[in-house]
Amino acid sequence: MTTPPSRSHGRLSMNAAAAPRELMTDRPRLASAWEARVITLFPETFPGILGASLTGRALDAGLWRLETIDLRGFGEGRHRNVDDTPAGGGAGMVLRADVVGRALDHAARGTPRSRGDWPVVYLSPRGRRFDQGMAERFSAARGITLLCGRFEGVDQRVLDAYEVEEVSLGDFVLTGGEIAAQALLDATVRLIPRVLGNEASAQEESFSDHLLEHSQYTRPALWEGREIPEILLSGHHGRIDAWRRDMAERLTKERRPDLWRAYCAAHGRDPDEDREL
Amino acid sequence: MTTPPSRSHGRLSMNAAAAPRELMTDRPRLASAWEARVITLFPETFPGILGASLTGRALDAGLWRLETIDLRGFGEGRHRNVDDTPAGGGAGMVLRADVVGRALDHAARGTPRSRGDWPVVYLSPRGRRFDQGMAERFSAARGITLLCGRFEGVDQRVLDAYEVEEVSLGDFVLTGGEIAAQALLDATVRLIPRVLGNEASAQEESFSDHLLEHSQYTRPALWEGREIPEILLSGHHGRIDAWRRDMAERLTKERRPDLWRAYCAAHGRDPDEDREL
Repeated sequence: MTTPPSRSHGRLSMNAAAAPRELMTDRPRLASAWEARVITLFPETFPGILGASLTGRALDAGLWRLETIDLRGFGEGRHRNVDDTPAGGGAGMVLRADVVGRALDHAARGTPRSRGDWPVVYLSPRGRRFDQGMAERFSAARGITLLCGRFEGVDQRVLDAYEVEEVSLGDFVLTGGEIAAQALLDATVRLIPRVLGNEASAQEESFSDHLLEHSQYTRPALWEGREIPEILLSGHHGRIDAWRRDMAERLTKERRPDLWRAYCAAHGRDPDEDREL
Repeated sequence: MTTPPSRSHGRLSMNAAAAPRELMTDRPRLASAWEARVITLFPETFPGILGASLTGRALDAGLWRLETIDLRGFGEGRHRNVDDTPAGGGAGMVLRADVVGRALDHAARGTPRSRGDWPVVYLSPRGRRFDQGMAERFSAARGITLLCGRFEGVDQRVLDAYEVEEVSLGDFVLTGGEIAAQALLDATVRLIPRVLGNEASAQEESFSDHLLEHSQYTRPALWEGREIPEILLSGHHGRIDAWRRDMAERLTKERRPDLWRAYCAAHGRDPDEDREL
C-alpha cells in the first residue's frame, strides 16, 4: 500500500556498482533500466508472452530491457556443437563448459561483478525453488542473466566457476529452461516500479501475506441460479474485509498447510486453533 | 526403463469415453491424439515455446493437438467485455462467470464429461501446486482444457459450476495464466508416448525418484584448470553409479530437505543417518 522507493531512470544517474570496467565495453549501459540477458538455443521464442500485456507494454516503454544471446553462436567447430555425451556414461547430452563459459562472458559485458547486483541464474530442476521472495530480490538487482538449459544439463565446472545460482520453477521436468525463464521474468518484471499501473494490486495478491486469495465475484448478481454472497452486496466494508480474511484463512489452511503454518508463525497464531474450539 | 503401454493413434480405435454425444458435435475427434484447449485473452502467444524443440516436433507430427479459444469472443456487448469490478470492492477486475461459462461450454464440445478423462484447469496462485505427478495424471487423460486468468481472478461461481480444478505453478505471482499453461503443457506433453525420442531419459530425470540429479560433466576433460572428477573417466560403471547416487543424495539433502524426507520415507531410510555417524 506504500509507495515503493523511486528509482532514477536518467542517463546521468550515479550508480555505485557501475565500475569503470563498464565504460570500456562496446555496449555501455547509459540508462539504468532493469535488464535481462537470456542465453538460449531458442532466441526466437523470446519475448514470447512477455511481449504481450503488462510486461510487453513495460518493455516497449523501456522500463526493462531484454537481450537474447544465442548459445549456438558460441559452439565448437564448423557445426557449432554446444553439447557432448556425459562423462561416465548415461543418456542425453550435456552442455559444454567452454561453450557456456564463452556465452556467460559475453552476457557479462558491462554488468556489475557482484552477483547481488546482477544474479546469474541457471534454470534447473536441481535448483532452489523460485518464489515471490526471489522475484523481489531479482527485481531489486540491476538486472539478471538467465541460462536456459536443454538436454541432461550443464557441465558442473562452469556453474562453479561463474558462481551460477540454480533456480527451479517447481518439481516437474520441462523440456528446456525457456518457459521457466519467462515465468521468472514475468514475476520479476511486474515488481519493477511503474510496470504495474496500480501499485496496490501487487501488494494485495497472494503470497504477499502468506495467505491464498479469497474468492472473487462480479456481475451478474444472479448467474445460472447462483447468487453473489449477500455480504459482498451489503456495503459494510468492515464486515466484507473480515469475511474475505476468514475465507482466505480457511482456503489456505485447507489447500496449503505449509503456507498456513508460515502465516500463523508470522502472526503469533496457533495453526490448530480451530480444532480446539 | 520399461516400455510404456502403447496407445492407438488410429482413427478406428475404440474408446469407451467417446460417447455418442461426440458424434453430434460439429468437430468430431476422429483421431485419439492428446489435445489441449486453451482459453485465453492472448491466443497469439500460443504455441509460443511449445512450437519449438521436442514439443513442437510432436505437435507437427500430430502426437498432440493444441486449440486456442479466444475468451474475448465470448465477451458481453459491443465491446466484448470479459470482466467487471469485484463485488464488495477492491482493486483490479474479475472475469465474469457468464463469459467464462460460454467459453468453457465451447471448449467442452466433443470432450468426455468425466473430469478424470478430461480435466478442466484454471491456472491460479490459489491452486494446488503443479508437480510431476500431476503432469503424469494429465498426460494419461484424453486431453485437457486450460483457463488462463488475468486481472484479480475469475468469478468463483463458474469455477464451482464447472468443477474447475485450480492449479498453481508455484508461490509467485504471474501477470496471467499463459506462461503457467505453457509450463504445464510442456511438462505434460513430454510424457505422452513417442514425444521424447529416448524413453529412458524421462525416467532418469529429477523427481522420478524423489532425488535431485547428480552433477554432469562432459568434454573437454580439462577446462580452465578444472578437471572432470577422475571416477567418471575410470570406466567402472558400478562405482560411477554409486558415486552419482551418493552425490544425488547429498545434493537433495542439502538443497531440498522436503524431497529428502520423502525419499527416505519411500526407501525406509533415516533422514538423519549421517548425523549419527
